[in-house]
Amino acid sequence: MSKTYMNEKFPHFLHGGDYNPDQWVDYPGMIDEDMRLMKLAECNEMTVGIFAWSMIEPREGVFEFDYMDKVLDKIYENGGRVILATPSAARPHWLGDKYPEVFRVDRDGVREHFNSRHNHCYSSPVYREKVRIINTKLAKRYGKHPAVIGWHVSNEYSGECFCPLCVANFREYLRRKFHNDIRELNHAYWSYFWSHTFDSFEQIEPPTPYTDQSHMGLTCDWRRFVTEMTVDFMRAEIAPLKEICPELPVTTNMLSNYVGLDYRRFKGVIDFASCDSYPAWHSGDQQDTAVHSAFGYDIIRGLTLKPFILMENTTSVVNWRDYNKIMRPGMETLSPFQAVAHGSDSILYFQFRKGRGGQEKFHGAIVDHVGTEKTRVFETVKRKGELLKKVDEICGTAVRSEVAVVYDWESRWMLDASHGFSKNTKKYIETARAYYSVFWKRGINCDVIGPHDDLSPYKIVVAPMQYVADAETIDNFARFVERGGTLYATYTLGMVDENDLCHLGGFPGGKLRDVFGIWNEEIDTLYPEDSNFCEFKGAKHKLVDYCELIHAEGAEVLAVYGEDFYRGMPVVTSNVYGAGRAYYQAARDCGTLSDAVISEIVKERGVRSATGTVEPLGYGVSAHVREDGEDRYVFVENYSDVPATVPLGRKMTDLISGKETDVCKLDAYGLGIFKYSEE
Amino acid sequence: MSKTYMNEKFPHFLHGGDYNPDQWVDYPGMIDEDMRLMKLAECNEMTVGIFAWSMIEPREGVFEFDYMDKVLDKIYENGGRVILATPSAARPHWLGDKYPEVFRVDRDGVREHFNSRHNHCYSSPVYREKVRIINTKLAKRYGKHPAVIGWHVSNEYSGECFCPLCVANFREYLRRKFHNDIRELNHAYWSYFWSHTFDSFEQIEPPTPYTDQSHMGLTCDWRRFVTEMTVDFMRAEIAPLKEICPELPVTTNMLSNYVGLDYRRFKGVIDFASCDSYPAWHSGDQQDTAVHSAFGYDIIRGLTLKPFILMENTTSVVNWRDYNKIMRPGMETLSPFQAVAHGSDSILYFQFRKGRGGQEKFHGAIVDHVGTEKTRVFETVKRKGELLKKVDEICGTAVRSEVAVVYDWESRWMLDASHGFSKNTKKYIETARAYYSVFWKRGINCDVIGPHDDLSPYKIVVAPMQYVADAETIDNFARFVERGGTLYATYTLGMVDENDLCHLGGFPGGKLRDVFGIWNEEIDTLYPEDSNFCEFKGAKHKLVDYCELIHAEGAEVLAVYGEDFYRGMPVVTSNVYGAGRAYYQAARDCGTLSDAVISEIVKERGVRSATGTVEPLGYGVSAHVREDGEDRYVFVENYSDVPATVPLGRKMTDLISGKETDVCKLDAYGLGIFKYSEE
Amino acid sequence: MSKTYMNEKFPHFLHGGDYNPDQWVDYPGMIDEDMRLMKLAECNEMTVGIFAWSMIEPREGVFEFDYMDKVLDKIYENGGRVILATPSAARPHWLGDKYPEVFRVDRDGVREHFNSRHNHCYSSPVYREKVRIINTKLAKRYGKHPAVIGWHVSNEYSGECFCPLCVANFREYLRRKFHNDIRELNHAYWSYFWSHTFDSFEQIEPPTPYTDQSHMGLTCDWRRFVTEMTVDFMRAEIAPLKEICPELPVTTNMLSNYVGLDYRRFKGVIDFASCDSYPAWHSGDQQDTAVHSAFGYDIIRGLTLKPFILMENTTSVVNWRDYNKIMRPGMETLSPFQAVAHGSDSILYFQFRKGRGGQEKFHGAIVDHVGTEKTRVFETVKRKGELLKKVDEICGTAVRSEVAVVYDWESRWMLDASHGFSKNTKKYIETARAYYSVFWKRGINCDVIGPHDDLSPYKIVVAPMQYVADAETIDNFARFVERGGTLYATYTLGMVDENDLCHLGGFPGGKLRDVFGIWNEEIDTLYPEDSNFCEFKGAKHKLVDYCELIHAEGAEVLAVYGEDFYRGMPVVTSNVYGAGRAYYQAARDCGTLSDAVISEIVKERGVRSATGTVEPLGYGVSAHVREDGEDRYVFVENYSDVPATVPLGRKMTDLISGKETDVCKLDAYGLGIFKYSEE
Repeated sequence: MSKTYMNEKFPHFLHGGDYNPDQWVDYPGMIDEDMRLMKLAECNEMTVGIFAWSMIEPREGVFEFDYMDKVLDKIYENGGRVILATPSAARPHWLGDKYPEVFRVDRDGVREHFNSRHNHCYSSPVYREKVRIINTKLAKRYGKHPAVIGWHVSNEYSGECFCPLCVANFREYLRRKFHNDIRELNHAYWSYFWSHTFDSFEQIEPPTPYTDQSHMGLTCDWRRFVTEMTVDFMRAEIAPLKEICPELPVTTNMLSNYVGLDYRRFKGVIDFASCDSYPAWHSGDQQDTAVHSAFGYDIIRGLTLKPFILMENTTSVVNWRDYNKIMRPGMETLSPFQAVAHGSDSILYFQFRKGRGGQEKFHGAIVDHVGTEKTRVFETVKRKGELLKKVDEICGTAVRSEVAVVYDWESRWMLDASHGFSKNTKKYIETARAYYSVFWKRGINCDVIGPHDDLSPYKIVVAPMQYVADAETIDNFARFVERGGTLYATYTLGMVDENDLCHLGGFPGGKLRDVFGIWNEEIDTLYPEDSNFCEFKGAKHKLVDYCELIHAEGAEVLAVYGEDFYRGMPVVTSNVYGAGRAYYQAARDCGTLSDAVISEIVKERGVRSATGTVEPLGYGVSAHVREDGEDRYVFVENYSDVPATVPLGRKMTDLISGKETDVCKLDAYGLGIFKYSEE
Repeated sequence: MSKTYMNEKFPHFLHGGDYNPDQWVDYPGMIDEDMRLMKLAECNEMTVGIFAWSMIEPREGVFEFDYMDKVLDKIYENGGRVILATPSAARPHWLGDKYPEVFRVDRDGVREHFNSRHNHCYSSPVYREKVRIINTKLAKRYGKHPAVIGWHVSNEYSGECFCPLCVANFREYLRRKFHNDIRELNHAYWSYFWSHTFDSFEQIEPPTPYTDQSHMGLTCDWRRFVTEMTVDFMRAEIAPLKEICPELPVTTNMLSNYVGLDYRRFKGVIDFASCDSYPAWHSGDQQDTAVHSAFGYDIIRGLTLKPFILMENTTSVVNWRDYNKIMRPGMETLSPFQAVAHGSDSILYFQFRKGRGGQEKFHGAIVDHVGTEKTRVFETVKRKGELLKKVDEICGTAVRSEVAVVYDWESRWMLDASHGFSKNTKKYIETARAYYSVFWKRGINCDVIGPHDDLSPYKIVVAPMQYVADAETIDNFARFVERGGTLYATYTLGMVDENDLCHLGGFPGGKLRDVFGIWNEEIDTLYPEDSNFCEFKGAKHKLVDYCELIHAEGAEVLAVYGEDFYRGMPVVTSNVYGAGRAYYQAARDCGTLSDAVISEIVKERGVRSATGTVEPLGYGVSAHVREDGEDRYVFVENYSDVPATVPLGRKMTDLISGKETDVCKLDAYGLGIFKYSEE
Repeated sequence: MSKTYMNEKFPHFLHGGDYNPDQWVDYPGMIDEDMRLMKLAECNEMTVGIFAWSMIEPREGVFEFDYMDKVLDKIYENGGRVILATPSAARPHWLGDKYPEVFRVDRDGVREHFNSRHNHCYSSPVYREKVRIINTKLAKRYGKHPAVIGWHVSNEYSGECFCPLCVANFREYLRRKFHNDIRELNHAYWSYFWSHTFDSFEQIEPPTPYTDQSHMGLTCDWRRFVTEMTVDFMRAEIAPLKEICPELPVTTNMLSNYVGLDYRRFKGVIDFASCDSYPAWHSGDQQDTAVHSAFGYDIIRGLTLKPFILMENTTSVVNWRDYNKIMRPGMETLSPFQAVAHGSDSILYFQFRKGRGGQEKFHGAIVDHVGTEKTRVFETVKRKGELLKKVDEICGTAVRSEVAVVYDWESRWMLDASHGFSKNTKKYIETARAYYSVFWKRGINCDVIGPHDDLSPYKIVVAPMQYVADAETIDNFARFVERGGTLYATYTLGMVDENDLCHLGGFPGGKLRDVFGIWNEEIDTLYPEDSNFCEFKGAKHKLVDYCELIHAEGAEVLAVYGEDFYRGMPVVTSNVYGAGRAYYQAARDCGTLSDAVISEIVKERGVRSATGTVEPLGYGVSAHVREDGEDRYVFVENYSDVPATVPLGRKMTDLISGKETDVCKLDAYGLGIFKYSEE
């Protein structure tokens, strides 16, 4: 195992962020002032060109690069590097005026006018052509520029379009999927129901308020298609970049918890992963917020299992939440270093300098409207730059995990679309995070992966609410257990196939009934005021929302319902299958039951944590490890508002103070970074 | 009085439900397996053909009946009978593709695309013609089939359409109503207000967000028109059926509490009434749920005052509620037998077998995805079939009532449309049910009728919130009291005529001021945090929401306001008028005042209950009687979650155990069925 | 100072209201009956012609004035006077049928059909022409009628239109504003952001859901344009009236708290101000309701600083609230006399007689559906008429104030539009009212003015949340302080200019940083569950929602934060600037801090109250003064539900009882009117 860098030519942590000097063309001298401030802030990176299309191509076919030339040259002269953006996330006015087909049609069938951003049709051949032209220009002009170390393609891909071009592409997509056989589609969509049988692919429309929303399979295929079309557009964006400067690595900045795109399909298209992250600190349960954020980073890292880039975060505050509270001292450092602990090789901010107007003028930035370096926020940024320099050896190291949680966009989509259970308590991702938190609380590195991913590296895999079980998932899960893995699954497991058709012959579907040694006969949905309970290892655990009536068919019963008409039926079971073991949890608990069962399994399987112990580290405290095969770097993070003391389990070097220690003492919102060598 | 059967040729309780083998055409052998399971489940009925249009007419003018032939033959061979559905509730794709005029236009003016079901325009001549053709085919082919015992026309008629054809029909409807005299309409709609005078009928549009919603009279006429157009369509559907097989009885399945259609207009068009019922058991106040459901059955029975058919209920669970809880053991039997107690001659389920896909795949059914008879739910269905056989003599018996509650769609519509009172607390139907519950709690049979219905069979009629008083209602009410009836009315009585024009000369309008001997000067609307009170028979009763400032003009004052500036003004009055008596309750109570006053009246008028006593039977417990002139069948129902003991007031035969007894002991959710002979 | 009358020819309080005999044309004899009731109710005014267009021009170009002739003659014969309305607020059917361009287009791009009222496009040349014709007719026919004493132009101008004509006018408006220079607009809208640079004015569209809503400057310019277009339409309406009868004064009835129109632009267009007022009595905090209503009257009076007309209020109840509670006895008098205390020379009601139908048939009126004078409400109206006669000498007197609160539509709009702070707690107008209440509670007359208005008459000016500081505001504020005024401003002061561009160089912008002697570095937005506190004069004050991190740059610090990471930073500062003093409050308090600080300033500046003391008069109690230079009239108002005793500070004459007294004793909802002569 060695280090892996985003760009070998600049093997350092990046510190900087979105830089939009195009907003300040009327303000002479601003670039020079920005250079002065960049250096003062200990920054070494600027992300340039996002939303700059109207500056560099002010009229169709008229390109003006002088300003951008100057910006890139100055950044390089001042020691900085540039991640260069393609400008496709917001089109110039002339483009929409001349080619109105590039505007999206919304789900109500209305074609938007100029509007905000992130709103072009991904199908549009004209838009693709215009993007190809500008991307080619950029690649030719800046692909070899010494400042440029990577591509930032577009910005936060998202949304969907219901225009005739997209509808036609959707039909094409379905033709491919169903081998041009409408009967195959009819069976997959169970469209005999309500006499909805399709006679031809031409009859198919995306689900909207005024079309048919009663085919769950169609709804899910539409979501798959939206991902496919987005990826197809992204491929087209990237093609000229790769053609002209194949050595420059490419990414696009993702929104880790975004439900609309199955980011797993981005694998192989981008060279490295990156994300934007804006945790809602200081509101609600802070540990939940930290877990939410951690889970997001691990989704992103899970795409490549390599270091990623934190492309955007805020210096202090955002401006788009219901309440925009300033991060409390300490948190402005801990927050982006959480990303580093999870595998980020950068701390980049949106934005370098606050604009005077526009929707984001009150978003936090390195440089405030007041314009000077003499602000509290500027000082904190500078300190983070200094700290990154101090721990620069960590850049490029890996995150390795012995456990994984399955996060499956398709189960999430299909559960959300399904009519059944309770629309108010499906909570797919909340449930996934709850299981993930069992590891987080113990300082155990955990990967977040898909159900088709290679499970062989893991001792334990948890698959919460894995509602969809297609043939590949069933095989992957069975094989993992058979070969000695420990699989932990829950209620709603394996009810449907990839088309949302219920498995016949009893849940969980196919071989899974054998793997888990159970049959799930019915699922009871509780009202919020209801609950049941079970006992496990002498403690009583509350059960809510979903209680399945399962039968052990060979599995050992570890806990049973304490009341109601299914009193005595199994809640937790464990089944030996091949060389491994498959656990099933038939009801939703409030965190205590799953923690109790899984922590037993963790001990049994000898899973390793960052600090040597697998006991919880205390409320709001976690720890993570990065490593390069020789050295291990331990990040200890305290998200709580009280100080914490965490024994490290051995002697380590505190990289901040430089001293040896075997205990980590942290203030509220404190961060510790330690190093030791593998023996 | 003798027995009345839906179809004399099959004088038995029906047990079965919706059967859609068309979903399983790709699964060979499924029909035979279904027949095996049908018999095992003690079923004798299958409702066939709902939503089967695309199967039997896969292309325009191409009819394929082989599959349905086979289904009907097999059912009959296996001892079953069929209620055959016309397929109009969901059209095949080709129909909408070729004739887009059949698609509804919604209230925003958008014509829907293919979409879900129950969404064709009732005005469309093409749609009517296509329905006529398929119905004719069905009638000719299956009208004489020995399995077929009745028609199920369409499914859950509902909704409205704003297309040009419907708008034209609406104008025609108004021309007829107003004798082609626009001045008459202008007066009825009080359209001088806001200068909205109409010059011609062509100017009239239905109320929508982008047209005029300020004419309450127009809003109510639109609702009347929607009912009329639906009934007109239904008549057209039925015509070929009656022409070809006049002896087969016809129904359509109604949704008892549906506000959109005045089901009273279905009288005379259908031969027998039927309904779908899905009570929300185990949520909120269970007694309220039972009363809600009971009231719905009595609305349906009130349409013909003959036995009706429970066309759909669930075996265990639905899939479309916010929370879909399994019915607790006992309730799965009590719930459909409630319908039987109220006059149903069937227990039919949606659905026989769960589909693999589609919107309702998780809805309860007799046969589960697992596919075997070895499920808890299958067992419960079988037991209900056995019980129905045991009490088959009850089939065809009548429900007779000495009391009635007026439920008036027009008052409900107009109160909902009116600007005044409080939009949050109008609660017309909740109020109607609250009065109905006074009888329910005491095991007193109660009819639910309309304000123009014959009141002479009743000792007591309660008319809650009878806001609309047209001339016929005023006469009907006055005549009833004059001839000795006891009429009980409440706040908002008789404020407007059938066009929502306020009665001049003081409320309640017309002769009602004399009948009740009061004048209602003002109505005060309270905030939720406000209340008043009154005393009646030594007890204090809380008053909320509405307090009218009424003056006794001859009436006796039974209770007065306890506070506020109208302290001492009447709350309850009683007035002798002719040979009868009219009570008025000027304020909304929380159940206790109306219960206290009406229970006094019940005693005074000697109203008979199922068990001999007119005291409440206990929380969640009720009793109902069916009779045939010789024998009386007493159903005792316990909807509470604790056991109940109910004295029967005399010796009866327990039809379940076969023993004589004078007391009924019930488990939680328990049901007792008893018989005795009239002396 | 002398008296100022709306119309010198009728120097009396007006008592009456909206009169729509056009609704009763089918009811012979109604006008005579109305005249009888008008006199019985002590009324001397009828507002005629609102919504009467279809009566007087039933077909295009066909005018029928006979009925209105009769109405005006009869009113005059019976001693009444008329405020005559132009009918433009609701168009007749024929007008929309023939000229559909007069219908508004809503923000979703849908052109409305006939619809309700107040819904014509203000740009439409045809509509303006039709209005010109009917207004000319009315002016010619009734301008000299002895009954007519004023014009009521249209009704409650409101709303906006997105039709092509309005869009074109909007572009024209922007061309004028930005000197036909698109670069100027681009800078003002900061449209380089997100590549939204405009190439030409033709690309601009109003903000709607399907166009661009990300330019805050554009959003605010659209609101300004809507006001301008409304005023332009109003000018066009008034032109023929003024041409034909220049001596008749003109008004339009405003909705004091309406956010959509900057009423300050109505100045100079109307001759006198008038408003409709429907306080939500008896719900929530009654004192808040009274302050809300008072603030509204002072907004209206602030437009002209002369007596105004209360054009609509209710006799007892409205019909359009969520809950429509009857005003409790006393309140029906106190409520309209609040307007008189604040400068109204009338008490006019909507409506004289309740219509039988239509949307407002349950709205309170002088004459009820019962039709007689023998109602509780009629009696209360009569008593108010008698009281107005008794105090008729007050008519025409002025309200003078030594203090003022700045209420700025533009700050309200821009704060609402801005992305930042918290959308849930911006509460611009609630904050303005909270500061206003400091004076209200003490019986201190207070003007409500705009930021560009002349501040020289005032000792103290409070400018709450004055987010917008254009050059004129900055100068006006600075000049006021420089010349000796006391200015009190708060958090969010002066962050942006008139285009919502942030001031560079530190907040508050421009010279204001000097005037206040502070720099506002950051603003922290708290969650609802958070708070901070400060101490002032020994008491602890809770701080919520917004806490700015400010630095004193010369200002004296009067209070500091008690906790959190900005503990010790200033909360309240005071700065000497020129001959005056500028206070800054950096955080939102819950009423106690601002009350404590400002009441100190009130004492220091020797501000005079109605009753001689500047201590609070007690919960729900206030007092106001009208004066004519010789006599002072003191209104003491008790909005609480308990009696109140208020020392008057000197001997006065009780105008109700006629006695001398130095103390005012009031029942719940009681009103006192006193007089004394200036020495």
